Amino acid sequence: MKWSTLLIFAAASVVSAQTYKRLGTCPSLGCIFPPDQTDFYAGAYFDIRLEVHSPVNGTEAFKNGEIDKDFTLCIQKGDGPCEDVTKFFTVEDSKLDTWTFSYYEDLFARDAGSASVVNVASKGYRAPGMYTARLKYHQTMETVAHWLVREPAPERKAKNAIIFIGDGMTQPMITAARMIAHKSINGRYQSLMQMDQMEHLGHQMTHSIDSYITDSANSASALFTGHKTTSGALNVYVDSSRDSFDDPKYETVAELFRRKRGGAFGIVTTADVVDATPAAMCAHTRERGESAGIVYTFLNGASGDTGLNSSLAWPTSCEQPDVIFGGGAQAFLPGPDSPNGTDFYQAFAKEGYNIIHNNTQLQGVDIEKKTLGIFSSESMSQWLDRHIYPESLKGRKNSPLGDDADALDQPGLKDMTLKAIDILQNRQKDSGKGWLMLYASCHFFLLAQVVKDFDRSEGASIDKMMHALDYDRALGELLELDDTIRATIAHLKEIGELDNTLIVVTADHGHGFDVYGSVDTKYMAAQTDPRKKRDAIGIYGESGLSGYTVAKGSSPDNNTIVVGSGGPNFPVQWDPRYTFAGGMAAHPDIREGWQVNKTGIRKTVVSGDDGYVANPNDQPEEGTIPDDNSSGVHSLTDVSVFASGPGGEAFRGVYNSIDVFFKVADALGLGAPSSESQ
Amino acid sequence: MKWSTLLIFAAASVVSAQTYKRLGTCPSLGCIFPPDQTDFYAGAYFDIRLEVHSPVNGTEAFKNGEIDKDFTLCIQKGDGPCEDVTKFFTVEDSKLDTWTFSYYEDLFARDAGSASVVNVASKGYRAPGMYTARLKYHQTMETVAHWLVREPAPERKAKNAIIFIGDGMTQPMITAARMIAHKSINGRYQSLMQMDQMEHLGHQMTHSIDSYITDSANSASALFTGHKTTSGALNVYVDSSRDSFDDPKYETVAELFRRKRGGAFGIVTTADVVDATPAAMCAHTRERGESAGIVYTFLNGASGDTGLNSSLAWPTSCEQPDVIFGGGAQAFLPGPDSPNGTDFYQAFAKEGYNIIHNNTQLQGVDIEKKTLGIFSSESMSQWLDRHIYPESLKGRKNSPLGDDADALDQPGLKDMTLKAIDILQNRQKDSGKGWLMLYASCHFFLLAQVVKDFDRSEGASIDKMMHALDYDRALGELLELDDTIRATIAHLKEIGELDNTLIVVTADHGHGFDVYGSVDTKYMAAQTDPRKKRDAIGIYGESGLSGYTVAKGSSPDNNTIVVGSGGPNFPVQWDPRYTFAGGMAAHPDIREGWQVNKTGIRKTVVSGDDGYVANPNDQPEEGTIPDDNSSGVHSLTDVSVFASGPGGEAFRGVYNSIDVFFKVADALGLGAPSSESQ
Repeated sequence: MKWSTLLIFAAASVVSAQTYKRLGTCPSLGCIFPPDQTDFYAGAYFDIRLEVHSPVNGTEAFKNGEIDKDFTLCIQKGDGPCEDVTKFFTVEDSKLDTWTFSYYEDLFARDAGSASVVNVASKGYRAPGMYTARLKYHQTMETVAHWLVREPAPERKAKNAIIFIGDGMTQPMITAARMIAHKSINGRYQSLMQMDQMEHLGHQMTHSIDSYITDSANSASALFTGHKTTSGALNVYVDSSRDSFDDPKYETVAELFRRKRGGAFGIVTTADVVDATPAAMCAHTRERGESAGIVYTFLNGASGDTGLNSSLAWPTSCEQPDVIFGGGAQAFLPGPDSPNGTDFYQAFAKEGYNIIHNNTQLQGVDIEKKTLGIFSSESMSQWLDRHIYPESLKGRKNSPLGDDADALDQPGLKDMTLKAIDILQNRQKDSGKGWLMLYASCHFFLLAQVVKDFDRSEGASIDKMMHALDYDRALGELLELDDTIRATIAHLKEIGELDNTLIVVTADHGHGFDVYGSVDTKYMAAQTDPRKKRDAIGIYGESGLSGYTVAKGSSPDNNTIVVGSGGPNFPVQWDPRYTFAGGMAAHPDIREGWQVNKTGIRKTVVSGDDGYVANPNDQPEEGTIPDDNSSGVHSLTDVSVFASGPGGEAFRGVYNSIDVFFKVADALGLGAPSSESQ
Repeated sequence: MKWSTLLIFAAASVVSAQTYKRLGTCPSLGCIFPPDQTDFYAGAYFDIRLEVHSPVNGTEAFKNGEIDKDFTLCIQKGDGPCEDVTKFFTVEDSKLDTWTFSYYEDLFARDAGSASVVNVASKGYRAPGMYTARLKYHQTMETVAHWLVREPAPERKAKNAIIFIGDGMTQPMITAARMIAHKSINGRYQSLMQMDQMEHLGHQMTHSIDSYITDSANSASALFTGHKTTSGALNVYVDSSRDSFDDPKYETVAELFRRKRGGAFGIVTTADVVDATPAAMCAHTRERGESAGIVYTFLNGASGDTGLNSSLAWPTSCEQPDVIFGGGAQAFLPGPDSPNGTDFYQAFAKEGYNIIHNNTQLQGVDIEKKTLGIFSSESMSQWLDRHIYPESLKGRKNSPLGDDADALDQPGLKDMTLKAIDILQNRQKDSGKGWLMLYASCHFFLLAQVVKDFDRSEGASIDKMMHALDYDRALGELLELDDTIRATIAHLKEIGELDNTLIVVTADHGHGFDVYGSVDTKYMAAQTDPRKKRDAIGIYGESGLSGYTVAKGSSPDNNTIVVGSGGPNFPVQWDPRYTFAGGMAAHPDIREGWQVNKTGIRKTVVSGDDGYVANPNDQPEEGTIPDDNSSGVHSLTDVSVFASGPGGEAFRGVYNSIDVFFKVADALGLGAPSSESQ
């Protein structure tokens, strides 16, 4: 079954899209969201969106862009009959939407300004689902998606859960942090990181659904929902419609926990609370930069209005978290960033929140009430500055009140985390419902990438664009994270909740040496300007899929499974148009060309008058990403997972990032029957 | 007890040694080998070497270099009396040796050519040991070493063991190999690496005994003996005497396995069989480059003559492994590299070995006999060349017969490994003694580093110096390793030995992004020539210990434990003279300065007319290691450990590289009583 599917995909995919895509996860002209290979957690909500594309021009031009209004979707359970979606889910048919969008097929098209125009016919449904979905369109065409509902654990293991996300935290960073903070004598560390001492160890794969390098929105979505998506998207499959909030949604662990268990829920971060990682607990949008909409979601839950003919309003169980601690006042203060100039501090206060803005207030806050703590106008200041170089905190004009004062009394991660635990615990005491907390530290190497995304959506801030590659601060933040985990374990023991609490520590992606993008070698070869050549390097979503696993000349999007001359488990080709961009930090003068050397081992350097110099036959430029980027970018590497407590044993071994959600949900028994469950 | 020790160390350590050391593991003037913090496996052999240093000049000058012939060593068990070593071990006293050596205290001294001269008085003993060793010297001084004998497992769990070492294989490499070789559809890998599917996962710390970056000799010694040592050394603690083969030894897992179990033992590698990793199974020398001595050890076992007054000859149970497969014919052919022009092919044949030189012979070889397979004059050719670009194999003149022909019929890792299993299994059949095999793949990013070591000892080969940073070939080798593990598991199942065999897959060190050395910032600041500035970067052994965990102004070697202003578990200082050198592969134009930025987040780039350019206030050079290096260097990162089979569960979690030895030895029950045991 799956094989025929793949061939259908392949047949419809002729364009060599990589740098740009017509639409991620839809290589054919008929799009089903959720796409093929999707797993669901039993009882979790999700949307279905169908799109039939009619390209007017470009390599996929079809019937002069004539729209197909007669497409059908049938759903098949196992080997049963394929029933029309409306009959199968007993929902009324969705009204047909139509629109047009355009895109560039590759960098050549971008430079020539020749966009491909696509006419779209679309329908949407909202229903719990499983099984096989068959979309028939353009008379003869068919797209098939296989969906799997995973069997949930029969009972709850953990009452509470804390998920610590060290943003971009890789093993080399953990090792370096250990090295600078812990003493070694004759090869023996005299003390260890708390992470080193966690009971269980695993690795998770961070790649996104349509590129092998992920951003933080996409990777956090995978961790919190069990669904990977496209770079920049939060808990939606990205469709081609204009509204970025109406894309097909799927439920987050926080929404599910609230709906099924009715427990308390908190978010703590050192970044803006509307930044990708914390936002991924609640928000549903394909544009992570839309901070106003994200704050609105924190207050009111996700909007039920998704432009779908829905027989079911979106569950709003994520609204009003019991705790929100972090930076990012811009999104709360009345002003250009807030809808109709709303003052969100007041709006949250009206809903019964304590509103606090510094560590003094945090220490004295009443733990009976919901609490919103916004401690800086932007991301919170680093541990290194707060503890070692306080002078550098002055003149930042980062007061959360927007009064251009300096935020000099910011709490540390540990302060915020321990207080959040007290509030969550107190608000749940004796109910047995438990609580869930996300702790996201976004101050590692990621910082500059976050800035880059702001850049796309809100224009560049030169000051912010300079924040990058500061290893001292990154390791300082990592050590503070480790210290916070240590303190959290001690505090949970103190209040008698340690044995009831699952603790998971992981990262959302790598950020260091290894493969960090793709190279359009054809485009690079066609450029003469050395700096222009670097445009050929695709980062984040533009890195695309591996060109090494498809037949010569076919697109990395081509899903046909073929075997290369090297046999199975080896690349199908070693010199695809889209090669991987890799490198390492410790190197002589080198210039990357990212193409396989067919005549034996590559010669990276030649002997110069004064030591070794770069091989003049390699690329002339030093930098390894496009020069409109001010910072390092994400990388491909698996990241570590450390876990302890009930359900922790499930985090051992090597698995996909989406599995983290299923393991957490199972530990919390979110698939087990409960009064609130559907 | 330990604390007083540390203070004694500290008191005697005033010089700020980092790039160069007087002697690794001996910051005081009185040296005990094995040093403080050493663990032993019960019943394993080791040597004791004592040295009392009398520096004639330099910052440590003492009594004009007057030698102390009256030093004493007493050994104390628990809180018992401290008895003189001769009485304690009932060995006769060792004769006193004296010698003189000199060294540079730092790069300034090197440039000024002003060496520090040290007179030495020394004694040595050979005895099994534990407890506390107290060396009294120069009348008033004392050095104390605490030794621990770890309790071994009471019984054998595994009959056989295979240790796969992917040289320099980090998680980012494994992830990249998965990405180029395995298909992902909508975020799901359709197949996985074999390593991904191993039962148990762990991380091990690879740092060496006296530097935080290790080389392959040192790291392999740790894995195979439970003792870390100095960069470049194989299974000895490095003393200051001239003879590199008389340094104090300790027993390897292969020697122990042969002596205790009498089982069969094989070595398979794609590198020279005398290269650091395979050599570390048997050799005892502080100079990994001495290939003739290493071949001699394979033939006759380690020499008993260590210049020590020894009451006990060194156990030679490593002599004549049942299988030796790999490259490196130079060390076997009569010629400059072999002692007295010995033809080692003949010498091995005389001992009853089958001698083979290509894959055809390998396939047809008689599995009854011991087998020496040398398939190339140098390291064996890469999978990518053997399978995809065979043309590139021509003209290499790498025939193992030394006849300048090309070695075009080389076996692959899988061929060698499966045949080795058949030979080992056959030679042990029905004895129940089992077998032990090392598989070392040395073709990852390490290659150039190996060349660099050859460079030190045997002069540079420009051709070899060009072998570096070839990601395609590195990943090809990694994929072949993974394929070999897969085939090994299938073959063991086939012959009914899978459930009797412990399989461990790990790396000996990192080789990619992260911290990769130290920077003498004082030296760097004092240079005007930009390329000269790069001399300040210390790699491999010269990286030294962390400067972040000692008090301001004191040496990284200073063992005093102090707490910095940031509190425990944070660095004592953030701007030591010796900072760490770090970097990442994906970056804009940047220049590293490796010093903490005290005024807030570092500005790595500035806006140029044409995109972002490097901050002109940073260092002017691109390369990140001294320019007499043609290749990348090792890194700090922990590496993964994958394990399955009996005893495999012990490899879960995070631990020190030396623990790998203890876990393997316990699985094999090498501490359990046996007829051969002492």
